[in-house]
Amino acid sequence: MKKYLITGFSGFVSFHFLNYLENLHTANSVLGVDINEPAFNINEYKYVTCSFNKINLLNKEQVDKIICDYQPDYILHLASCSSVAYSWINPVESFVNNTNIFLNLVEQIRVLGLKCRILSVGSSEEYGKVNPALLPLHEDLSANPLSPYAVARVSQEMLSKVYCNGFGSDIILTRSFNHIGPHQSEVFVISSFAKKLVAIKHGHLHNKQITVGNINIVRDFVDVRDVVKAYDLLLHRGTKGEVYNICSGVGISIKQVLEQMTAILNLKVEPVIDENLVRPADNEIIIGSYDKIHKETGWEPGIKFNDSLADVINYWVNKI
Amino acid sequence: MKKYLITGFSGFVSFHFLNYLENLHTANSVLGVDINEPAFNINEYKYVTCSFNKINLLNKEQVDKIICDYQPDYILHLASCSSVAYSWINPVESFVNNTNIFLNLVEQIRVLGLKCRILSVGSSEEYGKVNPALLPLHEDLSANPLSPYAVARVSQEMLSKVYCNGFGSDIILTRSFNHIGPHQSEVFVISSFAKKLVAIKHGHLHNKQITVGNINIVRDFVDVRDVVKAYDLLLHRGTKGEVYNICSGVGISIKQVLEQMTAILNLKVEPVIDENLVRPADNEIIIGSYDKIHKETGWEPGIKFNDSLADVINYWVNKI
Repeated sequence: MKKYLITGFSGFVSFHFLNYLENLHTANSVLGVDINEPAFNINEYKYVTCSFNKINLLNKEQVDKIICDYQPDYILHLASCSSVAYSWINPVESFVNNTNIFLNLVEQIRVLGLKCRILSVGSSEEYGKVNPALLPLHEDLSANPLSPYAVARVSQEMLSKVYCNGFGSDIILTRSFNHIGPHQSEVFVISSFAKKLVAIKHGHLHNKQITVGNINIVRDFVDVRDVVKAYDLLLHRGTKGEVYNICSGVGISIKQVLEQMTAILNLKVEPVIDENLVRPADNEIIIGSYDKIHKETGWEPGIKFNDSLADVINYWVNKI
Repeated sequence: MKKYLITGFSGFVSFHFLNYLENLHTANSVLGVDINEPAFNINEYKYVTCSFNKINLLNKEQVDKIICDYQPDYILHLASCSSVAYSWINPVESFVNNTNIFLNLVEQIRVLGLKCRILSVGSSEEYGKVNPALLPLHEDLSANPLSPYAVARVSQEMLSKVYCNGFGSDIILTRSFNHIGPHQSEVFVISSFAKKLVAIKHGHLHNKQITVGNINIVRDFVDVRDVVKAYDLLLHRGTKGEVYNICSGVGISIKQVLEQMTAILNLKVEPVIDENLVRPADNEIIIGSYDKIHKETGWEPGIKFNDSLADVINYWVNKI
């Protein structure tokens, strides 16, 4: 029975990763850690033996003890302050917290000399603004981070490579693109839209306006259920020190997303631009290539975008 | 009268920067800050009004107060844990301290909205291992840091660009190559060799062996007195958000350095390799191009390498 330590456990990626493991019908042990309690029930699994520890990953002593006691085979490092918008308001906190929690983990694995593979989850934001002629984005493009959050992610990647090459640590890296799927927090754009639109549809809101930022930006959305499959494949078949895009390979504008969602719900809404939601230095267009992970692990996205949208909407229909 | 805040004030770069300012025969104010007292006398200048404050740059409250009280026009940010070797022993401390002291400075300038230009001193180590066909190194080559120290430097550069582009901060960046010159600490290779060779020459040591690491590595050494001139030129004429190499444009192996030094002293010594001094992932060869700074400021190195070596040796002759 393999032991997984999952950081950022209370998030929706972790929830879907547990479901993925459970559906393998193989016995696995999972220890989740987070500063917040998970909203889901960790005792409902048949194959996965799951426990939870409420700790702050910035507290080095707590991290050291957890790793020393649990001796994980794998670490799925999902924890982060992952909001780009928040990183513009609190740049230092965003940078320092993201890099420190990562260093607390990898350093303890190194110091103890544990044989443990770590999946370091990065972001498509690391690419920054690129020449559209270079799309879709490949992993060998150099990073050009445009926000404090993105700088933290690139730093984490560079630190990982130094730990792999200099200390022999076993770290696999991702540049994960925008996630979509049920249970996602409403601080993210699609989940936020879905909640609002469902509320309008159900007559809970009389105002049929929806507040948006820059709706012309194009993003590559990948379903969280595809993402977690990629994470487990990489933990088993990825190459140490390598970076892998996890994406759909398809770009869609926020405007198109809104149109598809209103079509599913058969609604008419009026988007109103809030300048506060337009970021100081945003990327116009992000589309990735998943060639590398496909070649090395066989992974490819399996869930169609419109099905993901329908599932997200359905999630909010059941929730509100 | 312009006000300079100099961090890492007790180091030898700061000492030479003060001498440079004094030789301009223009009235300037300098406030030096460091965790250590400077070894030089700060009251011996005629044109430079110099004061010193012993603070720890990791202490945000102290940094905030100093900047708020002094309201500098320029910050020359020299402070760092600049040893690559140390960063392999204490990777987390090296990374966190270097990035945190930088963030404490730039964040307070941002929060107060001060009109202040910051010179962020980086390192040639940021380039990492490159294809020899790409030498000499130009600033537009992507960073490929090979040590925890180098990662911190690249992170500092990326953070600077985000602060310039996202917040309008006024930061100029350098990639400074290996320094040579009198008053340098003996933790650095040339100063360490000079001290040892002078001791052998004066008969203080009977053992004529000199302990070395990898003596085949090639570095680009630039005299500290040329470096400080470049720093002041960049503070006045550099372009916000841009990175500038500060180098000699000439590569020399550690073996050749040792040969030139023993020739100056008319000595014969036996180099003995200590595997502990060979770093886990070292660069073979580093040579820079100073085209960019030359075009924008007119700067070029003025002191010949052999003259620098003679000055370093002379410094140790007078000291020991």
